[in-house]
Amino acid sequence: MPRAITAFSNPLVKATQRLRDKKHRRDAGLFLAEGLRILTEAREAGRLPETLFFVPTADDRPLVTALVAATEAAGGDAIETTPDILSKLSGKDNPGAVIGVYREFPTPLDALDRSAAAIWLVAERMRDPGNLGTILRTADAVGAGGVILIDESVDPFSVEAVRASMGALFTVPVARARWDEFRAWLRGGPGQLVGLSLDTSSGYRAAAYAAPTFLLTGNEAQGMPDHMAAECDLLVKIPMLGKADSLNAAVATAVMAYEVLARTERSA
Amino acid sequence: MPRAITAFSNPLVKATQRLRDKKHRRDAGLFLAEGLRILTEAREAGRLPETLFFVPTADDRPLVTALVAATEAAGGDAIETTPDILSKLSGKDNPGAVIGVYREFPTPLDALDRSAAAIWLVAERMRDPGNLGTILRTADAVGAGGVILIDESVDPFSVEAVRASMGALFTVPVARARWDEFRAWLRGGPGQLVGLSLDTSSGYRAAAYAAPTFLLTGNEAQGMPDHMAAECDLLVKIPMLGKADSLNAAVATAVMAYEVLARTERSA
Repeated sequence: MPRAITAFSNPLVKATQRLRDKKHRRDAGLFLAEGLRILTEAREAGRLPETLFFVPTADDRPLVTALVAATEAAGGDAIETTPDILSKLSGKDNPGAVIGVYREFPTPLDALDRSAAAIWLVAERMRDPGNLGTILRTADAVGAGGVILIDESVDPFSVEAVRASMGALFTVPVARARWDEFRAWLRGGPGQLVGLSLDTSSGYRAAAYAAPTFLLTGNEAQGMPDHMAAECDLLVKIPMLGKADSLNAAVATAVMAYEVLARTERSA
Repeated sequence: MPRAITAFSNPLVKATQRLRDKKHRRDAGLFLAEGLRILTEAREAGRLPETLFFVPTADDRPLVTALVAATEAAGGDAIETTPDILSKLSGKDNPGAVIGVYREFPTPLDALDRSAAAIWLVAERMRDPGNLGTILRTADAVGAGGVILIDESVDPFSVEAVRASMGALFTVPVARARWDEFRAWLRGGPGQLVGLSLDTSSGYRAAAYAAPTFLLTGNEAQGMPDHMAAECDLLVKIPMLGKADSLNAAVATAVMAYEVLARTERSA
């Protein structure tokens, strides 16, 4: 049976709110996800919250009920609360009907099966949580095997990244690795490393891709370091006709990923 | 000569800070842009701030000096201030060296010259300022003629949209129109209206595009209404292989825009 919490001063409310902060997430090994769409996506992927906060709502009541039942069946805690407390936990004015507290599930690099997919997305020092979440969402859409985060990256379990992923955090494996670890793992099997670059004359539409393709996107502000570009089997460029000579990193990754997807399908 | 303001209580600081709010922007007809990269992009596009706040910095001093000189030469006001005040104006911890107050420059629909470009981006009820800014940045990169915002849209002059556009707000014309106005204007000349949809079997890679192509992207949560889809000359689908069946709206727009760009180039 769900219990009810209606006081801001409740210790569980305070502990949950602290998970918005990276240090507390790391210490607890827990993170937050919010909204019926994302939590339902998680449930369908077999991920249930350790604690589920929900408000009784008229809309989508069956989905809330299903989440409560699944959470409790898995031994989790379902807590009925108020919209104000949900807002406070979320940091948004309009957080929706549910917030879940999930155990983090990092994927070790060695657990990735490169033969499982033709496309893998690799992001180097990704800085913006919205960009990372959007890349996760794109990875889901193109059927990528996973996302590999290289060196110091924004936390994929941050509230903003989870939100922008629209649930893809729960369906797409995310591994974190230092560059040297990644390189050693990559070269231990088949795989073409393709880097996005401005310093090449090879257009992305004319390049020859070979599955599994690992698409490497560099840091938003600086691009990738020279030694990473040198390691790439192929450097390709997306044409830019405008004045700014730049694309959002998540957009560039998606344009590339869809090109590789279309070519892989064509050759299949 | 620049004057100096170092007090938070200064009326100009307070009035400028209020421009972060939509109502005050509309009343004043002014908006904020921040950071050397974006303000320099604006200067190169011939847009100078009415008021320029700057902090004396070691890095990129020549660009700051150039902005101050250009602002004053155009009759604007250059104000030396402190990093704390710049942070307060920006709402960011690390706002960079400059913030400019610019006069809004809406583009009337009738001022767009459809023969000037092969691609135009049309966004219906775009809700997220980051998505809108990213679409502007993509529009710049693909050489789009402009961006047309249909019905109730997020404000392209909001701080977040300007920031995400990375300066493209200053280089890409942005028009706002009601759907009926847009439809009447569109049908008053050549142009193919292409809608992104999930409810079609036409893949975006196989479709026949005819310049000028107007790419219509629907609202992030709901997609476009049926009557807009019915008005499209072509509905196309981006394949989604994952569990979520959705892409970020700015990502979907970019994948489409680059496809149209490549096809237009191929046929040229």
